Amino acid sequence: MSLGKITVEGSARHVHVTKEALAALFGEGYELHNKRELSQPGQYLTEEKVRVEGPRGGMDRVSILGPERKNVQVEISLTDARTLGIETPVRESGDIAGSGACRIVGPAGSLDITEGVIAAKRHIHLRPEDAQALGVANGQLCSVRVGGERGLVFNEVVVRVSPSFMPAMHIDYDEVNAAGLAGNAEGEIIV
Amino acid sequence: MSLGKITVEGSARHVHVTKEALAALFGEGYELHNKRELSQPGQYLTEEKVRVEGPRGGMDRVSILGPERKNVQVEISLTDARTLGIETPVRESGDIAGSGACRIVGPAGSLDITEGVIAAKRHIHLRPEDAQALGVANGQLCSVRVGGERGLVFNEVVVRVSPSFMPAMHIDYDEVNAAGLAGNAEGEIIV
Repeated sequence: MSLGKITVEGSARHVHVTKEALAALFGEGYELHNKRELSQPGQYLTEEKVRVEGPRGGMDRVSILGPERKNVQVEISLTDARTLGIETPVRESGDIAGSGACRIVGPAGSLDITEGVIAAKRHIHLRPEDAQALGVANGQLCSVRVGGERGLVFNEVVVRVSPSFMPAMHIDYDEVNAAGLAGNAEGEIIV
Repeated sequence: MSLGKITVEGSARHVHVTKEALAALFGEGYELHNKRELSQPGQYLTEEKVRVEGPRGGMDRVSILGPERKNVQVEISLTDARTLGIETPVRESGDIAGSGACRIVGPAGSLDITEGVIAAKRHIHLRPEDAQALGVANGQLCSVRVGGERGLVFNEVVVRVSPSFMPAMHIDYDEVNAAGLAGNAEGEIIV
């Protein structure tokens, strides 16, 4: 049964930093530069890029997302994880205990993290009024169907509800490509 | 409704070569070396590796699959396509008209192809007796469900039937990773 539509957005690999990490990578007192607002209010793509290194390889020009957070978190696809050689669990944002390790390299220095590398568990951001209208609750798993030549149904999609969100589903680029999506797309929430 | 189970295999990026392409890349009279048999009878991984280059980058150590074919075909994921900068359509194997262009580099020379780069359309290989038992026909589209923390249902899965096949579903590594599969897995064919 269809509950309603949702915009599906691809999240490219990115890094969240703490104030301390930013100082280590870019220098003491450095501030992030907002390049573009993202769909979730208050979240933004910054001008700042870093290199992410694992035992098997590195990737340049990985974007930092702002604002600063309480923990460093590196979100990559499982394709990236294989390229970098980093053991990367599928986790919800913030759930980083025992997750992957990597080195982050900035223009002023580098930082080794022992955990914080995750592949984001696919999820839907909703405001309380959206959740109520759709008949879903925070933490609930649902399914989302997308069409096209690589059409599929994502199961195990976690619903996250907060007054500070805007309605959007977030998937990584393995998921974008597996579904053959180009840019943002529309999905149908089904149960 | 479940029709039955199918083994799901991930296909890493690979190249199929003609006799002429092999000569251009490895030298006149060169022969492929069988490293390991693949699930489809007569198909094998070879010892030979090449570099694949596009406008934005290159990838080393891409395996050649044997035996030789009538046309050069390069199968990559859409993540690879983005890295390499190659416009890559989703196609069934052999359907290469107007598909992507690339340069292939071997130890003895390189080869520019104007078409042949595709992302493989996900598909199931079946023998006639398997197709009959499952109640599906050559060319039919079906769906395949896989479980786990990234469980999903692949729609748009094309059924291919031949006495020379063995039963297996083939997906690329974007699809493997989007589904969170590690190595081979089991799927359920549903309609």
